[in-house]
Amino acid sequence: MNSSTTEKIKIQKADKSRIDQVDFENLVFGNVFSDHMFECDYKDGSWQTPTIRPYGSITLSPAAKVFHYGQAVFEGMKAFKDEDGKVWLFRPDQNAKRINKSSVRLAIPEFPEEIFFEALTTLVKMDRDWVKSGEGNSLYIRPFVFATQAGVGASPSTEYKFMILMSPVRAYYAGDIQVEIAEHYSRSANGGVGAAKAAGNYAAQFFPTNLAREKGFQQIIWTDASNHEYLEEAGTMNVFFRVNDTLLTAPISDRILDGVTRKSVIALAKRDNIAVEERRVLVSEIVEASKNGSLKEIFGAGTAAVISPINAFSFQNTTHNLEKQDDSYAVKFKKELTDIQRNRCEDPFNWRFEVV
Amino acid sequence: MNSSTTEKIKIQKADKSRIDQVDFENLVFGNVFSDHMFECDYKDGSWQTPTIRPYGSITLSPAAKVFHYGQAVFEGMKAFKDEDGKVWLFRPDQNAKRINKSSVRLAIPEFPEEIFFEALTTLVKMDRDWVKSGEGNSLYIRPFVFATQAGVGASPSTEYKFMILMSPVRAYYAGDIQVEIAEHYSRSANGGVGAAKAAGNYAAQFFPTNLAREKGFQQIIWTDASNHEYLEEAGTMNVFFRVNDTLLTAPISDRILDGVTRKSVIALAKRDNIAVEERRVLVSEIVEASKNGSLKEIFGAGTAAVISPINAFSFQNTTHNLEKQDDSYAVKFKKELTDIQRNRCEDPFNWRFEVV
Repeated sequence: MNSSTTEKIKIQKADKSRIDQVDFENLVFGNVFSDHMFECDYKDGSWQTPTIRPYGSITLSPAAKVFHYGQAVFEGMKAFKDEDGKVWLFRPDQNAKRINKSSVRLAIPEFPEEIFFEALTTLVKMDRDWVKSGEGNSLYIRPFVFATQAGVGASPSTEYKFMILMSPVRAYYAGDIQVEIAEHYSRSANGGVGAAKAAGNYAAQFFPTNLAREKGFQQIIWTDASNHEYLEEAGTMNVFFRVNDTLLTAPISDRILDGVTRKSVIALAKRDNIAVEERRVLVSEIVEASKNGSLKEIFGAGTAAVISPINAFSFQNTTHNLEKQDDSYAVKFKKELTDIQRNRCEDPFNWRFEVV
Repeated sequence: MNSSTTEKIKIQKADKSRIDQVDFENLVFGNVFSDHMFECDYKDGSWQTPTIRPYGSITLSPAAKVFHYGQAVFEGMKAFKDEDGKVWLFRPDQNAKRINKSSVRLAIPEFPEEIFFEALTTLVKMDRDWVKSGEGNSLYIRPFVFATQAGVGASPSTEYKFMILMSPVRAYYAGDIQVEIAEHYSRSANGGVGAAKAAGNYAAQFFPTNLAREKGFQQIIWTDASNHEYLEEAGTMNVFFRVNDTLLTAPISDRILDGVTRKSVIALAKRDNIAVEERRVLVSEIVEASKNGSLKEIFGAGTAAVISPINAFSFQNTTHNLEKQDDSYAVKFKKELTDIQRNRCEDPFNWRFEVV
């Protein structure tokens, strides 16, 4: 292996790339990883020895607190390659800030933003061949941090590991999806960790989601845990409802993730003079809008799925189907977003960040 | 290393015990581990090659789903040594069943109870010198299971690792503790995973608990997430309130752990003709009982802490102190429980399980 350093990061290069072994036409989301990864350990009160090394195993104590107490948070972001071979990130500042917000809520020490950026850009540059151009292709980037101190006392870890992995991906959902509105299970509560990208939030959804899948739904739209009256988010996506020509979405709260795609859609809608209401959305009003024909669209918004049209929802054992709209907002925002992400248009919001 | 097998378990013995290096008088809870550990992997749809080997590191993919989606549950139990050198477990059947209940909720495959028992008893027998007799001493046992499949798609893992670690411990809390009643943060919600010993439930409590610690409280008594009206549990303990001579405790629900110590205290109380009400307990009634003098005691009940007297609670910035009772239920139940656990009395409930 070749060794070198950037200003802050120690680099060990892989002897040989694994890229030739990868079938880029048949990728399962998040199952293949690029040649390198970033790693940085927290101990004795500071983040130490940031290192990029070949993607590979890590060795931990089985008593590491992540296994026992779930102290772990993550981010999801993507790199895109335009037709000229330039590589772009989308609003990476948002992820650098949000992982630290999540960390604070989970009693994890914050990670320095400047090392986050240097690690991210150095890693993407080194593995830029893994970013494929073309619609739907991207390099999914997974920064995450977890507790490594060995000990089964229920207290915050004194040691952590921050890592970045990268995985070439294609579209998350192949087509439109059907969802179930939660009537029994819940994702988060007031005063809980729903606003954090906490690892445990996802595990908690798998069992109810399996039950929904058995009934033919790909996702659950979560509702408030108290009375299941208000529509919240879909667990891996925020959710928008188009009633007539107005977009409705739940406001950010300590139950709902402050999604980067969500806020980008809201900004695009405002620019495009589409009314957006960030407010509590009643299940009953969406059911009513479905019945009276004013509910035109539902779509999810998230980094992995980008914009994911939802063509049916189930509530109280009744399935409500949505007709395709000629002037679909989902299609419109997906195009506007991906055009910005892939450097196919102007970037009036300064969202694009070139990796050079 | 010596290799052998039980009926089902492959055994690799440590060449040399580490027990001489351990200062048993100055143990920090859960920081020292015995010579051996148990490990069993789930893949291709079954639990494979159960193995006992020397306590040591494990190697995982950094994409293992436990780091990203928090699929992990655990149990806590203890082994005790009586004055004749016999080693006892306490109601191990409850833990074998409960870890599987937790697993189901987190979409983790259940672990066969008979392998659980064989692993547990074989491991305790091999490391029986680590179980010290004498008040407060025990060997804390930590069965746990977590997701190991490499992949950052948000779906249940197809691979898992089940392990058992053992740690010699002394008392969890040194003396009486002070608690804060939650008015903003919450631990779990209806339809959530509060009833499971899910790793993520614990990480979620660390930040609010840190805030409480800064104010001088060791623990939080959680309340319902909807309105903070009802008293629930303390996160590592169930909680009992003694009003006059009646014990009150929150009923088991999907927000509250079905604690083994909790149910044992209820059984002892019933045997001792002490009235127990398992019902929703209002914060307001406990505050009122504190004011009018009918609140005699509060105590936590859990495997790690056993019975932990709470001598003060804070609500709405007012601290309510509790006077020591000459006929303390906390002291009485702690003695009755530990006498059974340590084979110092009859065992009318058949709770003790000798490891021979």
